Amino acid sequence: MNKIEHIGIAVKSLKDSNELFSKLFGEPHYKIEEVEREGVNTSFFKVGENKIELLEATNEDSPIAKFINKKGEGIHHIAFDVTNIESEIKRLKNEGFIVLNEMPKKGADNKLVAFLHPKSSNGVLIELCQEIKD
Amino acid sequence: MNKIEHIGIAVKSLKDSNELFSKLFGEPHYKIEEVEREGVNTSFFKVGENKIELLEATNEDSPIAKFINKKGEGIHHIAFDVTNIESEIKRLKNEGFIVLNEMPKKGADNKLVAFLHPKSSNGVLIELCQEIKD
Repeated sequence: MNKIEHIGIAVKSLKDSNELFSKLFGEPHYKIEEVEREGVNTSFFKVGENKIELLEATNEDSPIAKFINKKGEGIHHIAFDVTNIESEIKRLKNEGFIVLNEMPKKGADNKLVAFLHPKSSNGVLIELCQEIKD
Repeated sequence: MNKIEHIGIAVKSLKDSNELFSKLFGEPHYKIEEVEREGVNTSFFKVGENKIELLEATNEDSPIAKFINKKGEGIHHIAFDVTNIESEIKRLKNEGFIVLNEMPKKGADNKLVAFLHPKSSNGVLIELCQEIKD
């Protein structure tokens, strides 16, 4: 794993939280993106080489709506940048981690992504992501 | 803020979680450190320029014991590296954030640290940290 690619934070209102995190970082988000099939609107902030992704549900069945109903707003996942997502999925499965997406799927920010179930990783939802090269 | 310095993860057993995260990252922790006045044992992993800090309570009054009792194991805080922690504390207070330590305190890993209350930052416990230069 190369670095923390981003930390995903579940928020109720992207508008309000964009303002809040602009104050925190001293600069605004650089991108807004809807990921329709995940039921989320996202915004991205840069912090050095890392990013913060804010996630707002677009419908009640969105995983982010369910997360907020259960736990409130807060950190939702950590995403690690990997060079070869298929081989990482295979390696982590062999190490006993529960991989939720054995075939990586298209995520936000031009990435192939796969998640590890929090129950196999100390309660932490972990995303692996690999940049899609055009 | 320069980068994500580390993500703090609350764990029940540092021994078990050191094994688990060694499997995740493909390499072991590089440091163990007790922070006695916080009631925690910590271990550190490197992921590129970022770190993961595992936190185990050493007594029942430790903030980590309370966190795990309430929420279970999982992500506890995000720490951002800053160049001048005093001026960041002042700036963030002016922006309306609740700063828990107006005077930065000595934390793990040779850092001066200060925390922002999660209720002023979307449910996220945020640590500011500045390397202590010898």
